Amino acid sequence: MIHSNEDTIAAIATPSGVGAISVIRVSGPESISSADKIFKGTGSLVDFVSHTIHYGKILAEDKSVIDDVLVSIFKSPNSYTGEESVEISTHGSQLICKNILERLVKEGVRLAEPGEFTKRAFLNGRIDLSQAEAVIDVINSRTNASLKGARNQLDGLLSKKVGSLRQSLVNSSSLIELELDFAEEEIEFVSFENVKQEIKKIIEEIEKLIDSYKIGKVLRDGVNVVLVGKPNVGKSSLLNYLVKESRAIVSHIPGTTRDIIREEISIEGILFKLFDTAGIRIAEDEIEKEGVLRSRKAVENADIVVLISEVQSDFPQDLFTELLDLTEEEKIVTLINKIDLDKSGTHSESLNVSAKTGEGISEFIDLLKKKSLVSESFSEKSAVVSNLRHKTALEKAKDHLIKSIESIEGKLSGEFISVDLRNAESALGEIIGIVTTDDILNNIFSQFCIGK
Amino acid sequence: MIHSNEDTIAAIATPSGVGAISVIRVSGPESISSADKIFKGTGSLVDFVSHTIHYGKILAEDKSVIDDVLVSIFKSPNSYTGEESVEISTHGSQLICKNILERLVKEGVRLAEPGEFTKRAFLNGRIDLSQAEAVIDVINSRTNASLKGARNQLDGLLSKKVGSLRQSLVNSSSLIELELDFAEEEIEFVSFENVKQEIKKIIEEIEKLIDSYKIGKVLRDGVNVVLVGKPNVGKSSLLNYLVKESRAIVSHIPGTTRDIIREEISIEGILFKLFDTAGIRIAEDEIEKEGVLRSRKAVENADIVVLISEVQSDFPQDLFTELLDLTEEEKIVTLINKIDLDKSGTHSESLNVSAKTGEGISEFIDLLKKKSLVSESFSEKSAVVSNLRHKTALEKAKDHLIKSIESIEGKLSGEFISVDLRNAESALGEIIGIVTTDDILNNIFSQFCIGK
Repeated sequence: MIHSNEDTIAAIATPSGVGAISVIRVSGPESISSADKIFKGTGSLVDFVSHTIHYGKILAEDKSVIDDVLVSIFKSPNSYTGEESVEISTHGSQLICKNILERLVKEGVRLAEPGEFTKRAFLNGRIDLSQAEAVIDVINSRTNASLKGARNQLDGLLSKKVGSLRQSLVNSSSLIELELDFAEEEIEFVSFENVKQEIKKIIEEIEKLIDSYKIGKVLRDGVNVVLVGKPNVGKSSLLNYLVKESRAIVSHIPGTTRDIIREEISIEGILFKLFDTAGIRIAEDEIEKEGVLRSRKAVENADIVVLISEVQSDFPQDLFTELLDLTEEEKIVTLINKIDLDKSGTHSESLNVSAKTGEGISEFIDLLKKKSLVSESFSEKSAVVSNLRHKTALEKAKDHLIKSIESIEGKLSGEFISVDLRNAESALGEIIGIVTTDDILNNIFSQFCIGK
Repeated sequence: MIHSNEDTIAAIATPSGVGAISVIRVSGPESISSADKIFKGTGSLVDFVSHTIHYGKILAEDKSVIDDVLVSIFKSPNSYTGEESVEISTHGSQLICKNILERLVKEGVRLAEPGEFTKRAFLNGRIDLSQAEAVIDVINSRTNASLKGARNQLDGLLSKKVGSLRQSLVNSSSLIELELDFAEEEIEFVSFENVKQEIKKIIEEIEKLIDSYKIGKVLRDGVNVVLVGKPNVGKSSLLNYLVKESRAIVSHIPGTTRDIIREEISIEGILFKLFDTAGIRIAEDEIEKEGVLRSRKAVENADIVVLISEVQSDFPQDLFTELLDLTEEEKIVTLINKIDLDKSGTHSESLNVSAKTGEGISEFIDLLKKKSLVSESFSEKSAVVSNLRHKTALEKAKDHLIKSIESIEGKLSGEFISVDLRNAESALGEIIGIVTTDDILNNIFSQFCIGK
């Protein structure tokens, strides 16, 4: 089932920056013939079979050589998009790629929108919508656990699960609609009790999926840990010790330095984003005010807030009270630092650590793991929901199913039950893209990088 | 002629950063069989023919999927390196690439050194040394003119020229050595006058090549333009106007912001690096001192120094004197800004411009072009020397040839002449890599990026 896309699109598919190879991706009905017009090799690209590679030169309009390249040919439907496709591998250079793209545009090829190749893969039925969404999660994954979560979804585990739940619903609603057709004959084809039991089972499965979001979100987005404490309690040394201990600093991506993220570490494959706050109490100074606002925001978005004090000072009750305004109590971990100086200041309800000697740090890491559900390791063989859009759709489906059970129990007409079931079906269909709108698609694919 | 490389090497060939596709390159006798051990597709990679692409999965040791990939097969000698090679195209992700590289390393593959693929291409006779050097120039080219210069060299124009000059020398020295063999018989086979004329022609050709370095260097490295002037003469507005006028800002590469480069623009395809100096006079303040040192360094490395003053002030004779200590007078351009305020301050020996109205700016750009030899456009069909190593070798060859002419004119024994000619041959051979040492090779390829 190839969706008709009249346009042929092209984009640079490799990151910008210095590297050995750059790749331009072209897809659409004219991809091979357009590439052929600017290519000089041992033969015409249009004559070559799929999945073959051809050495040659891309020529400028004045017939000078832009670059020598390898051109890979993919014939429909055996390509990423399902369409006729070409990949042009050049010397690593944005400039060469730009020159080649300009040539292609002159041959009628259009520059691709972000995510447009994957969108076409979806529209052409190569992958479903949840798989398409997993593609960008795979690319954005920065730890192995998040990568496995995204791969799980890309491999279709969620799709299969949602698809089979939806199929069960289709069966139930068909039965009920059959019943409606024969309603005048007053024969009861369908046991409403059986349908109810079936729906209850489906609700249970949906609840399990909704529940998996807790882990899925951690896998996908990591865990935000915010360190709060008065000056000189040793926030920075604690942070440095954690980084050292985990021995897995995740390299910074551009932009994060603008935030108050200090370090990103990987603990058992889970990304922990450690934020060091300047202070959360309202300040006088304008610049400081901005810092306080950002710190408070960080606390609000935190999965774990570590309130740090030190053995030789009192518990910072004022900060604790302030934190309770911004986050839930169960997210707060209290930690007493500098126990190397004075053991008497420790407290059994707090973590007692020394960022100097390392004492207590492994317990701290264990607590981070526990709080972030890392210990509840997900099975790579079962579906995990990591996307808020999917969770919302599942909740919608669940609501409709609960309503349908109420309708059955209230002995309402089969028509009402049928509508509820169809609505639930449709909500599940949104996840895998059976039911979708341009808005949903645009929203999803605009988050992609160009070239994917 | 495949040089024996027992190692199989691998590296990520695409830039780091977010992109749609990453590529891992593997080369060496075990490349296909090693990749096959971690690959699961429709067949064994070792059975496939060259220049074909195969969809499949790269598996982790626990058989979980690292990624679905496209594997391209290149059989020796038809690959970049001339060796058996594989390219693995993954979802764009440094993490996936890292995981796959780790798998390959466990199968006995070694991580590649910078430039090692191109070094192997050279050692295996796929390209000569000057072409190998052009590869990194192609990748580093940031304007179309520099790209054309590098392509010219990669296409072998310099190699052919140097090769043919070297061949002429080989012919001459063979004649002389033949003469030596028959010296006892007192028959003169060789006209030394003819040999001398031949050598003179070769010297002329070498001089042309040496001369082309002026343009070649500009093509390859761009032109350093340093703006010097007292505060408030309008250096920044002039710089901004130039950028606007050229309408071709070259995107910044990371790191340049740490220098005092302000903007890079492209004028007729040539890269102009515009430096805005803080001041060149010795300062008291420590931080300022550092700035002054860097500014003076910039002036020393400048191809063009623009000394800016403004109509309503005197000519900055103190700065001009200071500049003469740092650079040659012919590199200095004097420019009077703000002629919109007062025409009477203009001077016929200076450029008279207004960075406000744009008056005189196009004359300024013309002067930049003239000073940087951009107008002397190079012919894409003739060899250009852009590499200092090549220029040095050419100068060495020239010196030996001059010596050989002196020997001929001094009626020295043919043995002396022969040694001079052989030395010149050898100097030319260094350029294309006929004569080379490990040190030279290491020095060249260590400047490459990993994966090339």
